[in-house]
Amino acid sequence: MTLEDYCQANRQRQLDWLIEYVRIPSISSSPEHKHEVRRCGEWTVREMERIGLRNGQLLETGGHPAAYAEWLEAPGAPTVVVYGHYDVQPVDPLELWESRPFEPAIRDGELYGRGTVDDKGQVLMHWAAIEALLQTEGRLPVNLKFLVEGEEEIGSPNLDGFIESHLDLLKADVAVISDTAMYGRGMPSLCYGLRGLAYFQIDVQGPNSDLHSGSFGGAVANPCNALADMLARLKDEHGRVLIPGFYDDVRPLPAEERTELAKLPFDEAAYRTEIGVDALTGEEGYSPLERLWARPTLDVNGMWGGYQGPGAKTIIPAEAHAKVSCRLVPDQDPAKIAQLFERYLRDIAPRGVRVSVQNLHGGRPSITPIDHPATLAAKRALQRAFRKDVVFMREGGSIPVVATFDALLHVPTVLLGVGLPDEHAHAPNERLNLDNFYRGILAAAYLWQELAQTRL
Amino acid sequence: MTLEDYCQANRQRQLDWLIEYVRIPSISSSPEHKHEVRRCGEWTVREMERIGLRNGQLLETGGHPAAYAEWLEAPGAPTVVVYGHYDVQPVDPLELWESRPFEPAIRDGELYGRGTVDDKGQVLMHWAAIEALLQTEGRLPVNLKFLVEGEEEIGSPNLDGFIESHLDLLKADVAVISDTAMYGRGMPSLCYGLRGLAYFQIDVQGPNSDLHSGSFGGAVANPCNALADMLARLKDEHGRVLIPGFYDDVRPLPAEERTELAKLPFDEAAYRTEIGVDALTGEEGYSPLERLWARPTLDVNGMWGGYQGPGAKTIIPAEAHAKVSCRLVPDQDPAKIAQLFERYLRDIAPRGVRVSVQNLHGGRPSITPIDHPATLAAKRALQRAFRKDVVFMREGGSIPVVATFDALLHVPTVLLGVGLPDEHAHAPNERLNLDNFYRGILAAAYLWQELAQTRL
Repeated sequence: MTLEDYCQANRQRQLDWLIEYVRIPSISSSPEHKHEVRRCGEWTVREMERIGLRNGQLLETGGHPAAYAEWLEAPGAPTVVVYGHYDVQPVDPLELWESRPFEPAIRDGELYGRGTVDDKGQVLMHWAAIEALLQTEGRLPVNLKFLVEGEEEIGSPNLDGFIESHLDLLKADVAVISDTAMYGRGMPSLCYGLRGLAYFQIDVQGPNSDLHSGSFGGAVANPCNALADMLARLKDEHGRVLIPGFYDDVRPLPAEERTELAKLPFDEAAYRTEIGVDALTGEEGYSPLERLWARPTLDVNGMWGGYQGPGAKTIIPAEAHAKVSCRLVPDQDPAKIAQLFERYLRDIAPRGVRVSVQNLHGGRPSITPIDHPATLAAKRALQRAFRKDVVFMREGGSIPVVATFDALLHVPTVLLGVGLPDEHAHAPNERLNLDNFYRGILAAAYLWQELAQTRL
Repeated sequence: MTLEDYCQANRQRQLDWLIEYVRIPSISSSPEHKHEVRRCGEWTVREMERIGLRNGQLLETGGHPAAYAEWLEAPGAPTVVVYGHYDVQPVDPLELWESRPFEPAIRDGELYGRGTVDDKGQVLMHWAAIEALLQTEGRLPVNLKFLVEGEEEIGSPNLDGFIESHLDLLKADVAVISDTAMYGRGMPSLCYGLRGLAYFQIDVQGPNSDLHSGSFGGAVANPCNALADMLARLKDEHGRVLIPGFYDDVRPLPAEERTELAKLPFDEAAYRTEIGVDALTGEEGYSPLERLWARPTLDVNGMWGGYQGPGAKTIIPAEAHAKVSCRLVPDQDPAKIAQLFERYLRDIAPRGVRVSVQNLHGGRPSITPIDHPATLAAKRALQRAFRKDVVFMREGGSIPVVATFDALLHVPTVLLGVGLPDEHAHAPNERLNLDNFYRGILAAAYLWQELAQTRL
């Protein structure tokens, strides 16, 4: 039986397999889901062993454990470390989901559920490819080390330390990660650049108790007003971040790359309609794709303080909070950005309130050479599976492990993702296009075949 | 038995009576407490009948019902309409209460519980006075009409209409309200000015769903950032409200009144310590008391949007909201302020989001003549009960019914309150000083005696 026939014949089983994976509510940011996260890690190890990988183990990290398994029986062939994550984002606001996040449902060729595209579907796509190769050919053409962590959605706080203490185990020639989206429907893509992240919480403390806004209003600094004032001073009306030094290390965008980016189709009207806004905004002087991929940002991810219920409650709140994060581009350093952010917040903190900043996490931005042999192998694999030309693109999101692989394992990373930009990763109604899932399985199998022919 | 002896002998019973009243969780802003609010109204009518008032009835208003009872057997004597409210504020954040809000507890001579001072304690103080007069003298020296509404804490949306349709029932010579605080501990006070209120909710809608802040950050307007920008543009760094026309109708503070206000003791350090802030703030050019009593304000009462849980969630939120209110002073009109507010918000709404404003409610500011015979009668009553000189003061809070009584019943209002400024009305650990409660009962009884001697 050919690889292709095997994959075709096993589609229903591959789908059921993914549904089972998505059913595990492995929300890494939620302390009350800690047990489910571990259960998901155990399940991940078990499945990797079941398909024929060896030496499966659940490795402690200090936080949620990492799942590992390997296949090292291709002497002389390249060794690839494949990274994915089995943890998922929180699901609130739950009421906006059309079907329950952990009860996967199929509608119009898409599988809906938390983790379908980010990242369980793309992890399992590799397993299905490995299983198909082992079932049809009895072996893999390369050596594989498969690492699936459980803390990606909380910023992988223990991953760097884990990799540092398992350098031998993870030693490889190249890394492959499938956790990105294609440029668009029907456009198989390879991603060569990622943004980094610096994520903070600002806490503003005013009076020691909520106060009656009539009795005290006018003489007491209001933490919500104070927080709004500070947030408003983080960016100007042209979309520029106002933190002194913020842009110092930003690598200017080469004219050549701007020209290439300008060639990519970008239907602004369709993009606006898709997300439901009447205008795009952003930093003056840059195109939307440049803003999304190659320029740093600052966004409030959440804020809260005072009364949120129905009707009117007349208080001066005792406190107010905001979560604020910056997407970073090469060569910004999240640790330096954190220092600048904290210093600026101290400088603009108004009188009458106490302001503190928590540095919740950071990740470095990265760029991978697009002419690396591994990248070219991945390009051929994608072309065979999707029967289309491959688009080279960047990605606005952050996969800090790419920078870690570079720094600690000294390997380049190939980002072979089959998500779509409108699949609601991190939002209600996350989904995965099943055609891309099935083609992704073939692409993953072809990738090992192509890499086996490649001198790395 | 004298009035004083009767009151002294019945202290425990009066306290138990109040505890029973506070136990009813009559949160008018909470739809799920609707039944408890009505039960509290029914209890209010029953108690007023039990002490000897006549014609008790629970009157429908379109919202929560109003409790009414009367005693009209003093021909030739003045008729007084007494107004109070049996509804209370919400209790969140519940975790900051030292004892449960609806399980009253006594600590250090204070009764803790939601509604103890605002306003059940001060309503019941009048009932205890009436009961004492009827039990010791068999009659009241004036005609009384007692109106206790159930919607004060949500801005009395139906009260004006109710009064308008019950003008004959409520016809009187003077109104008395006990819902204000004394200037300080041991300083019996009469309040001659109240601020009004204009309360809004701002709703900001961005994308139709939360978006991944990596994939979309930089090109999409963020509703939280947009809301913060707008909130920051409501006041300048000198504490001045920036809404065009906001100050147009503010009556300048007479030099004479500024001199009188400056004479009142105000221990700024103690005030700061009490509320737990290291600096007072507010509008430049005015003293704290002027800012609190005689100048309009703008405060964010609550705001929310995006992720509020533990850790980091990397989203651009789909929406953000804020509750914002202005305290108004004579001669600002809440309807006009609402127009100005809504127009200004429309003007400053940024691109890429949809902004709407809900006008949640408004109340007019008011000033009552301090040389009115009823005010002077109240002054004598307070002096007899507290054995201290009486302080004339204003109040930063809003009691919109005072303006309504003026407009519809053509009566002045005496504001005889025995709360204290640190009793946490509207906040966790609301409390009532029991010494003030017992003296207030005497003051309320003396007030009817003094008013009986007064030509109104």
